[in-house]
Amino acid sequence: MKASLITIGDELLIGDTVNTNSAWMGRILTHHNIGLYESLTIGDERQVLFDALDRLRKHSDVILITGGLGPTHDDITKPVLTEYTGAKLIEHQPTKDFIVRNFDKRGIPVSPSNLQQAMVPDSCEVLFNTRGTAPGMWFELSDCLVVALPGVPAEMKHLMTEKVIPKLAALNEKVPFYSYRHYFHTAGIGESTLSDMEIGDVSNFLKTGLQLAFLPHTHGVSLRVSSSSDNQEVAREKAKPLITHIRKSAGDHIYSENEKDTLPVCVVRLLTELRKTVAVAESCTGGLLGSMITDVPGSSACFLGGMIAYQNELKTRFLDVPETVLEKFGAVSPEVAMIMAKTVAKKTGASIGVSTTGIAGPGGGTEHKPVGLVYFGYYDGERHFAMKQLFFRERKFNKERTALVALDLVRRVQCGISRLPYDAKPILTK
Amino acid sequence: MKASLITIGDELLIGDTVNTNSAWMGRILTHHNIGLYESLTIGDERQVLFDALDRLRKHSDVILITGGLGPTHDDITKPVLTEYTGAKLIEHQPTKDFIVRNFDKRGIPVSPSNLQQAMVPDSCEVLFNTRGTAPGMWFELSDCLVVALPGVPAEMKHLMTEKVIPKLAALNEKVPFYSYRHYFHTAGIGESTLSDMEIGDVSNFLKTGLQLAFLPHTHGVSLRVSSSSDNQEVAREKAKPLITHIRKSAGDHIYSENEKDTLPVCVVRLLTELRKTVAVAESCTGGLLGSMITDVPGSSACFLGGMIAYQNELKTRFLDVPETVLEKFGAVSPEVAMIMAKTVAKKTGASIGVSTTGIAGPGGGTEHKPVGLVYFGYYDGERHFAMKQLFFRERKFNKERTALVALDLVRRVQCGISRLPYDAKPILTK
Repeated sequence: MKASLITIGDELLIGDTVNTNSAWMGRILTHHNIGLYESLTIGDERQVLFDALDRLRKHSDVILITGGLGPTHDDITKPVLTEYTGAKLIEHQPTKDFIVRNFDKRGIPVSPSNLQQAMVPDSCEVLFNTRGTAPGMWFELSDCLVVALPGVPAEMKHLMTEKVIPKLAALNEKVPFYSYRHYFHTAGIGESTLSDMEIGDVSNFLKTGLQLAFLPHTHGVSLRVSSSSDNQEVAREKAKPLITHIRKSAGDHIYSENEKDTLPVCVVRLLTELRKTVAVAESCTGGLLGSMITDVPGSSACFLGGMIAYQNELKTRFLDVPETVLEKFGAVSPEVAMIMAKTVAKKTGASIGVSTTGIAGPGGGTEHKPVGLVYFGYYDGERHFAMKQLFFRERKFNKERTALVALDLVRRVQCGISRLPYDAKPILTK
Repeated sequence: MKASLITIGDELLIGDTVNTNSAWMGRILTHHNIGLYESLTIGDERQVLFDALDRLRKHSDVILITGGLGPTHDDITKPVLTEYTGAKLIEHQPTKDFIVRNFDKRGIPVSPSNLQQAMVPDSCEVLFNTRGTAPGMWFELSDCLVVALPGVPAEMKHLMTEKVIPKLAALNEKVPFYSYRHYFHTAGIGESTLSDMEIGDVSNFLKTGLQLAFLPHTHGVSLRVSSSSDNQEVAREKAKPLITHIRKSAGDHIYSENEKDTLPVCVVRLLTELRKTVAVAESCTGGLLGSMITDVPGSSACFLGGMIAYQNELKTRFLDVPETVLEKFGAVSPEVAMIMAKTVAKKTGASIGVSTTGIAGPGGGTEHKPVGLVYFGYYDGERHFAMKQLFFRERKFNKERTALVALDLVRRVQCGISRLPYDAKPILTK
């Protein structure tokens, strides 16, 4: 079954509101083997919606529409669909009763525009909405289904989950189509290196209904293997050789094969399983590393805390970095990173200490120490070393990438992987 | 000037990634008087992009495309645009040099697919990208401009701001239409309270071409006054009475009237101007408060650092919270927050110490101390008090809101505003 989506609203077009409905729709449709092939956002304009319906019904089994069902003059979805299907408006008694009852309960008088919400085109099946005043509408055109839902996320999700998906799934069963997806999340390696040097040419694996996608994002590069077939087992089997190949060739860099995992979640899980604790000594990340770890529920099982030593004096006062070391090597140096990591572990009693010191930018760079230069320190009683990375010019990006590389560093060492992130070499190993 | 937007990527359609590029694009285009009338998301499929180009060029002065410019086989934008414009690929020397230089610097070998990034269709003007390996492309078709940009947000935004917008704005100047926008950013007050209790009914201010929008977001509530006219001065004058009214009625809560400001930026600016320094003692925020401050370039002028005392033992060891106090009042208490704030100021030598201790959730709540309960401590030598807030159930939201309220607390006290965020009362004032 092929679907297209129209999200309606000037606020989406001009960017006052981020369109989270379309991502949610994409996920739930994909999950139910309904392929979304186009997602369109338009403003509150009659003719544009008319044209979109005319065009999309040629390619779609179902057109889903969200938004534009409110009671104000700029809400065009209901009038347009009424006109488009040559219908007239009639009152939907259950919706009217629901509106009156709810306003009564809250002691607010019912206005004419509230009651207008209970008027629906006689060409549709009403999808009764218990979360708001705008009902959903289900139209069966000669060649296509059209489903209109409110734009308020909670109402839209409720109607999709309870009403629309069950109806679409029932129709979908008549045309058997299964898609299978497998994810790999990697860290500490760039997209091209991962593709060219580790995984290599996969063209002999690919065939009809089997695809590999590279999804780079700030946390690393994810891979999606997807296969489809009219038989569930066949779809799954088709993907196996490619999955095995990726697992074997990119192993060190893969931190999870669970779609929803993030790197901080996996590191917290790993340390908790190993019964290890970690503490952080942060300079250029300014607290972001600790914050990323504590974004994970249950991180208190492995995270103790640490120091934010942004000012150099605090590196001395909190982290025992001698002033002479700061003067001789500078704050952004492997020597300082090493001391920071060891001291924070000692002072907190954590099994692992990890540190960051670098030049986040945009200012502060020199020829020898450019913006984006970061040193990491690692200490766990057994191992004690520093590592260098060179990132880019944008401050927030550099901070985020630094925190993630620090997490990946901990992951790799604790998993016994000898390659460091981005194939960095350990410095000053003790 | 009418624009349409195509965002490309299976990950957007199936909802692996929320499409934030389209909202950002909508904002920047609107800001420059370029109307976005359609925003389309499609997958990595040649024919679909061909069809979209054919259709959109009929209605658009410019088609903006993001995504699909990466080096892997599923990136279709460059091949399709090459074919669509009947061009051939040629090497773009500056991009090639940039790639080689950057990989050299980082000590990573350049792969063939990296070098492929420097190949561009000879039908376009290259928009040189200093943030990544994929250059942007500017095509002038007979009836329409087509601009292709990378999908990575930082790279796309950089190219839009530095290259595309200046070129479009120059073309746009030929059609006189002025819209004037004025923003207010507020913190420490909810949307309905701000609207109903502070600003009140504004219907007598509003008229044709003058609007007021409430834009709630995680950092607070912003207000946008917008007016339009064919004359720049008229548009500006029309908005004045409403702007004056809002400034007067919502004054304490407004931290900036500059569209691009964020609360951390304003707090760093304020403290730097006042020549004050701040240090943080973080429990439930886990480093996020420090991270937010250090997101601001130049924050080293006022931010010294601090302690992340996630584990209770570290509250004693690092922040001198007596074990007896922890036992008697619990870690999440005004007493503990007060000691944390004072100790961190004393130990770092900062003029202001601010602390957070709370229950971020989802677990760990009790009847008396539910999830979302947070105590803040404030110390500046002169003032020393705690403050309570009760947020919601979601961990990351609670952390973010806590860090922002801590910043707003510092802003209010330092600006001499007696009302605390969300009208909280000071506790245990010393």
